[in-house]
Amino acid sequence: MVGTTIATKLVSLGHEVVMGSRSASNDKSAAWLAGLSANADKASAGTFADAATFGELLFNCTSGGASLAALNLAGTDNIAGKILIDIANPLDFSQGMPPRLSISNDSSLGEQIQAAFPKTKVVKTLNTLSCELMVEPSKLAGAHTIFMSGDDAEAKATVERTILREAFGWADVIDLGDISTARGTEMFLPLWVRTWAALGTADFNIHVVRAK
Amino acid sequence: MVGTTIATKLVSLGHEVVMGSRSASNDKSAAWLAGLSANADKASAGTFADAATFGELLFNCTSGGASLAALNLAGTDNIAGKILIDIANPLDFSQGMPPRLSISNDSSLGEQIQAAFPKTKVVKTLNTLSCELMVEPSKLAGAHTIFMSGDDAEAKATVERTILREAFGWADVIDLGDISTARGTEMFLPLWVRTWAALGTADFNIHVVRAK
Repeated sequence: MVGTTIATKLVSLGHEVVMGSRSASNDKSAAWLAGLSANADKASAGTFADAATFGELLFNCTSGGASLAALNLAGTDNIAGKILIDIANPLDFSQGMPPRLSISNDSSLGEQIQAAFPKTKVVKTLNTLSCELMVEPSKLAGAHTIFMSGDDAEAKATVERTILREAFGWADVIDLGDISTARGTEMFLPLWVRTWAALGTADFNIHVVRAK
Repeated sequence: MVGTTIATKLVSLGHEVVMGSRSASNDKSAAWLAGLSANADKASAGTFADAATFGELLFNCTSGGASLAALNLAGTDNIAGKILIDIANPLDFSQGMPPRLSISNDSSLGEQIQAAFPKTKVVKTLNTLSCELMVEPSKLAGAHTIFMSGDDAEAKATVERTILREAFGWADVIDLGDISTARGTEMFLPLWVRTWAALGTADFNIHVVRAK
């Protein structure tokens, strides 16, 4: 759902997108392609390796527990030297709702991905809200904040400018620092799921409000 | 610091406050009493047990790692039947900055306090921001949010009305549910400390922004 929402937005803006999955003939990818209304010629589907080879800029929209396996299928060499926007969270639903985190406190999924693929420029962002709001922050009433973590300053600047601000329309971006700061945004998820339950909607995000 | 900030605010509003600590002749309590400018006759200091016996409404402003010990000193019988506003966070600085959490994911300090003192009505709140903002939310530019967790609905209603709204001036209060939802606000702290480092100030809080 995160992957198709982001891919649809990028295709609507005229970007070429390859949707990767475990098999080249994935039913959900086919349904996504069939449902595109604008710029459908810009979109295609293939394996994780196909997507990784094609993309200049890569998005990890897999579930957190499967991210390392999916990126291994994408191929270490295929993702080397490229920016990987990591949106996944290490949510563990095995013990029911609300989910716990399978990684937290002394590590984060973002750090584990960066450590496993040291030649890839991992930028953790967009993992703190629902996918509809990732690509359409103007749906909410007033300013709200998106966070960013990563070791490569140039990669973060590229993601902030081209994806967050220009493509998706984010205005309030906070760069938390290196990839270890992904512990902060991933550990926000337990508050997110409880706020979601209390409000009865996923249509919310947090704004970091500063002093007058 | 949290304790004296809250106590000073409550005294300034005309409430009677006993500041509890390990010894009745605590230097910091004495300095706090000496520094009060308004309603100083409403303030006194004593042991944790003195404070627990006197107070109708109790605040746990101890450091998270010491909270259970401090509450045992306060006395199970002395805090039975009373509301305890738990502001502490299980921050562990033993491995340096930023702190990790000593309890998280499958439990929370709020739950451990409630389990240790089942006759006390624990309300977890105010643990997601600096103490100056706890008692003066109007310092920030625009609306922002305070969360609340607890098993006793009446206790939460009392805390929300008398302390959060009337005494401190909070307007946006979200009741997350039972005390297990304290996992959410306590696990927000790793994001708080990294946002604090990125902004270079503790003068911020989050606002839960809803849909238009």
